[in-house]
Amino acid sequence: MGKIICAGLGPGAPDLISVRADRLIRSSRHVAYFRKKGKLGNARRIVKDMLPANCIEYAMEYPFTTELPFDSPEYIARLAAFYDDWTERLADLAGSTDVVVLCEGDPLFYGSFMHLYIRLQGRVEVEIIPGVPGMVGCWNVTNLPMTWGDDVLAVLMGTLAEDDLVHHMYGADALVIMKTGCNLPKVRRALERAGRLEDAWLVERGTMPGERIARLAEVEAADCPYFATVLVAGHGRRPEAAE
Amino acid sequence: MGKIICAGLGPGAPDLISVRADRLIRSSRHVAYFRKKGKLGNARRIVKDMLPANCIEYAMEYPFTTELPFDSPEYIARLAAFYDDWTERLADLAGSTDVVVLCEGDPLFYGSFMHLYIRLQGRVEVEIIPGVPGMVGCWNVTNLPMTWGDDVLAVLMGTLAEDDLVHHMYGADALVIMKTGCNLPKVRRALERAGRLEDAWLVERGTMPGERIARLAEVEAADCPYFATVLVAGHGRRPEAAE
Repeated sequence: MGKIICAGLGPGAPDLISVRADRLIRSSRHVAYFRKKGKLGNARRIVKDMLPANCIEYAMEYPFTTELPFDSPEYIARLAAFYDDWTERLADLAGSTDVVVLCEGDPLFYGSFMHLYIRLQGRVEVEIIPGVPGMVGCWNVTNLPMTWGDDVLAVLMGTLAEDDLVHHMYGADALVIMKTGCNLPKVRRALERAGRLEDAWLVERGTMPGERIARLAEVEAADCPYFATVLVAGHGRRPEAAE
Repeated sequence: MGKIICAGLGPGAPDLISVRADRLIRSSRHVAYFRKKGKLGNARRIVKDMLPANCIEYAMEYPFTTELPFDSPEYIARLAAFYDDWTERLADLAGSTDVVVLCEGDPLFYGSFMHLYIRLQGRVEVEIIPGVPGMVGCWNVTNLPMTWGDDVLAVLMGTLAEDDLVHHMYGADALVIMKTGCNLPKVRRALERAGRLEDAWLVERGTMPGERIARLAEVEAADCPYFATVLVAGHGRRPEAAE
């Protein structure tokens, strides 16, 4: 009887993987990971120099990417069937051997693995190894002290409505906005309305080859990098305020 | 000419440190860390089996803990002088050798190191290695899929006023409340007012020896663990909703 172990890969640099996950990946015999059809996949790219030669790979390819609207019944049903299918396959495999599932960032923080995880409950043992979330890698490469003292941090998705974004941006001290892509012009307008655009950074492929860090206000409005995170640091209570 | 390298230690389990930070710590000759007076310190405890025998240690002991109110001018001035002093000492040391500063969790996420970091700007080279934040370790040991789809995550400090806590708890889908300690009864009341108490978990010393995980509603009201984090998972868009 084996188990399923989901290894958080962290933000992208292979040596930012935890010692526990690094050891596991280097000794794995069965490895599964999500990717878009026709792509190598970012999770697989991160571990490219780590997998043993005799390791068997399972690429879990999303059935579609952008052809269907997110909230259409067909999108929802097809994605559910995809997760159901891989749940069966991984559970079968784990009947006889350990299976490592690779997951960028931290598996329980907006991770696709969670859709398998809730389906696997009660069927097979699942272990999760935490990872450094992508946003943490991004604020580190930006050298941005992110949250201080009593700061409130809000993590927002660029897919939210502009008014909702503005509302949350007003309420919090430090901001992370993920899933930007072609929502970036909207995110930018929202930050401007909330008076936070001047302090906003755009980080693309943080800690990875091709990393790019820019002030959001200086980025072309038509530029919509997909793997990009927007950061605004907090400014809470600091002892130096007394100096 | 040396530099200062701040290594994020992650949530507490030594093998959740990144490979990059692990290598650095095991080969370090000068290591500094914060701690309360009279304590070994949690950062030092995490690396207890990792430091080389000939490593020189610098315990940066906070000049006080709870004797003065947080917002009193004396507290602020004494803490600023403490950071000023260690900035000088570490910058002097880095004039001739590398110095590793240990920091629990991620250094730029509510970390004391940030107070040294901003003072060291332009004086000496500083490198930071990200770590898994404590809250990420806590939701992993609780097996709590934390954020889904478009969920908004709010990270709040238990030191905020009760009404502010309630306001933020209403606005967000997933919640992390840190710095609970004796603010825990207030945090609990706020969660109850926001209708989130039934879903709240209390995690003490997550990933470390003495770890304790409990439903907050079932914890004695008089119980105020200091190193505790409160978690409420989000419940965003999930494909299984269509099943």
